[in-house]
Amino acid sequence: LDEKDSAFIKSSLDGVNPADISALLDEFDAEECKYVFDLLTPETGAQILEDLEEDVREEFIKEFSATDLAAFVELMDSDDGTDILYEMGVADRNEVIRQIEDEEKASNLMELLEYDEDVAGGLMAKELIKANLNWSISQCIEEIRLQAENVQKIYSVYVVDDRENLLGKVGIKNLILGKAGSKVADIYDDQIISVETSTSEEEVAAIMQKYDLEALPVVNARGRLVGRITIDDVIDVIRENAEEERQLMTGVSSDVEEDDTVWKISRARLPWLIIGMVGGLVGAQFLGFFRDEIIIVPALAFFIPLITASGGNVGIQSSSIVVQSLANPNVFADSMWKRLLKVFFVAIVNGAILSLMVFGAVILFMREQPLAATVAIALFAVVLLASFMGTITPLVLNRIGVNPALASGPFITTTNDLLGLAVYFSIAHVLYNL
Amino acid sequence: LDEKDSAFIKSSLDGVNPADISALLDEFDAEECKYVFDLLTPETGAQILEDLEEDVREEFIKEFSATDLAAFVELMDSDDGTDILYEMGVADRNEVIRQIEDEEKASNLMELLEYDEDVAGGLMAKELIKANLNWSISQCIEEIRLQAENVQKIYSVYVVDDRENLLGKVGIKNLILGKAGSKVADIYDDQIISVETSTSEEEVAAIMQKYDLEALPVVNARGRLVGRITIDDVIDVIRENAEEERQLMTGVSSDVEEDDTVWKISRARLPWLIIGMVGGLVGAQFLGFFRDEIIIVPALAFFIPLITASGGNVGIQSSSIVVQSLANPNVFADSMWKRLLKVFFVAIVNGAILSLMVFGAVILFMREQPLAATVAIALFAVVLLASFMGTITPLVLNRIGVNPALASGPFITTTNDLLGLAVYFSIAHVLYNL
Repeated sequence: LDEKDSAFIKSSLDGVNPADISALLDEFDAEECKYVFDLLTPETGAQILEDLEEDVREEFIKEFSATDLAAFVELMDSDDGTDILYEMGVADRNEVIRQIEDEEKASNLMELLEYDEDVAGGLMAKELIKANLNWSISQCIEEIRLQAENVQKIYSVYVVDDRENLLGKVGIKNLILGKAGSKVADIYDDQIISVETSTSEEEVAAIMQKYDLEALPVVNARGRLVGRITIDDVIDVIRENAEEERQLMTGVSSDVEEDDTVWKISRARLPWLIIGMVGGLVGAQFLGFFRDEIIIVPALAFFIPLITASGGNVGIQSSSIVVQSLANPNVFADSMWKRLLKVFFVAIVNGAILSLMVFGAVILFMREQPLAATVAIALFAVVLLASFMGTITPLVLNRIGVNPALASGPFITTTNDLLGLAVYFSIAHVLYNL
Repeated sequence: LDEKDSAFIKSSLDGVNPADISALLDEFDAEECKYVFDLLTPETGAQILEDLEEDVREEFIKEFSATDLAAFVELMDSDDGTDILYEMGVADRNEVIRQIEDEEKASNLMELLEYDEDVAGGLMAKELIKANLNWSISQCIEEIRLQAENVQKIYSVYVVDDRENLLGKVGIKNLILGKAGSKVADIYDDQIISVETSTSEEEVAAIMQKYDLEALPVVNARGRLVGRITIDDVIDVIRENAEEERQLMTGVSSDVEEDDTVWKISRARLPWLIIGMVGGLVGAQFLGFFRDEIIIVPALAFFIPLITASGGNVGIQSSSIVVQSLANPNVFADSMWKRLLKVFFVAIVNGAILSLMVFGAVILFMREQPLAATVAIALFAVVLLASFMGTITPLVLNRIGVNPALASGPFITTTNDLLGLAVYFSIAHVLYNL
């Protein structure tokens, strides 16, 4: 590539799948990508632009003129074209749309840009095949021939009435198998699942998974068919949500990958580390109140890591179970109170088992009964408290509109550390009569 | 339901989507489900059996006779039928297969049961549409009519030669748009992506996502077309992997849901809690060696939570970034050494920032210089060490064939607690000249 042997590059990329080329291009800088790009056919180029990772693409499209981009966008489905336009400034975006020759495509794109990126309207494509209820099957197949030019993948033909209201669907299979004389009205399936343009992307993903759908029609508030969402877009939603959740759980604040710069990675990781450190400083300040206890019974300090680690582990377990059920709402059959009661019983069982084990271990190895009692009782209390906090925090976050997965991460660990220490030393204070 | 008003149940379930019925049934016990089931059409029943959650289904199928199950399995695609047979004992399984009337279906199921559940062979269905290279388009459409009876969703028609070797594919769209006189050989697309029966399910999922495929043909070791995998099965694989990873990260050992019994939930959570507790006991034993230091400088104990929490947070951040890149291998462009070097630099940047902040805070609030120096130096060392451990552990686990996500959970927290304490008190020992 360094030698810019264009004929060689061209021939070696010929026949390679666009997805493989885009994986290659992710490794190069924008200028090198642009060079390779100009050697490809427009169709391959458009396909690669669709596949590129968002942050790479955002940089990359700056290399192209509005005319180039308009040509690429014209070759894409409207949902993919919209994704690219979302990444540009408003002025550039309008310039690209002006350069698009196909009037219908341009107006489709303008319509899609009106929707938020994270609702059904922002996920859907305008390309779909629809048939009127009153058409005959042969008329319908003829129309499919005409409409199919613009649609990459067909899945189902949607059936509408004269006012474009969505009524049902017909599978290609049934059209092929159907008798030539019959009408669409005779063979279509009126059990159709659709969403409105304002449905959230999470709900769209849940519906498509629940009913095993490859495509989902989208209607406007008046029930008119306006677009369809295909499964590949939803897989991206599922993956992005899983990644977001993982970031919240592990305290890495923004989307970082191994090949980013040292400074970018450091910056993404600092905020939660600082919060954890401030929590540690507050803990130190707090332990300062128990200075005398520690001097008299230094063994109390030995069990600080045991108390904080157990609180953290229990808190993360509890919150992750709640986060999982929040993401999968049909499990939510039990009422709030019944759930809290169950959490309470689980905590009592686990707390009791752990406390007994710790009590035995401390008696066995250290032969100090008051110490064993203090640690065991504190551990029991910490397990109860951490279970409660781990359960209630994601529910509260969810209620106030914050992603509940945040509660499975450093947030809950820091809180539980402080609470655990308070419980531990308060119990020590009482039991030792200090 | 309690009153067993069968006519009412039947009429109210009529026309309800099977996926909705199965969500309802998840809430009832096996006997109640069986009662509702007998009121449904066999097609709806088969659909519901496919949709039920695995653990519910495993209980539920015990209620049915082999003849009943054979009838349901016969109505399913071979991949879904195989899933159900996997859940039964070998004797019951063979009895069900014997009861299946359709010979071809029975032999397909026996073939699929030979494969492991987690490779392409275990995911694929035998139902697919194939066309010979030498057919004309009209002959091909006629064949599709015949074959389509058995295939729920068509996607693509696979093109094979006389020896069943996979050569390419033709979209339904191209068949419909093609001229009636031309041959399959003229219009088929020879750029086709396929996998072998032995390909792992993770790799299948990665390939289908990368190339945005709805269906993926499977060939045997000799290149003959033997089945196809559809996107709905792969979405399940993606979701199951995400759940497994989350469990490993949060230390909940087996698949638990909120509506399980208290004892089942407790048992699933205990193992990692016990490991964490044993880690805490080892930590206590270890801190016992530094009893004298703690008596002389009790403030050393105050910073134990800060050290352990920071080590834990850094360890989890580092391991999660590695786990993410292991799951997404094309990011792995950098060599092992280059990556470790980068981790090292990020740790130096973050460690230095955190140490300076702690140093300032301790000086400000406690006015003890040697303490501030000890905590700051220890924190810096712990950040370095935890980064290294967090990076190396998942790589080692991955190398020895253990799921690397295990390293993002309680495992790394426990290890880092102990290492952090060792570093902290060693530094204190030296700096205080104790």
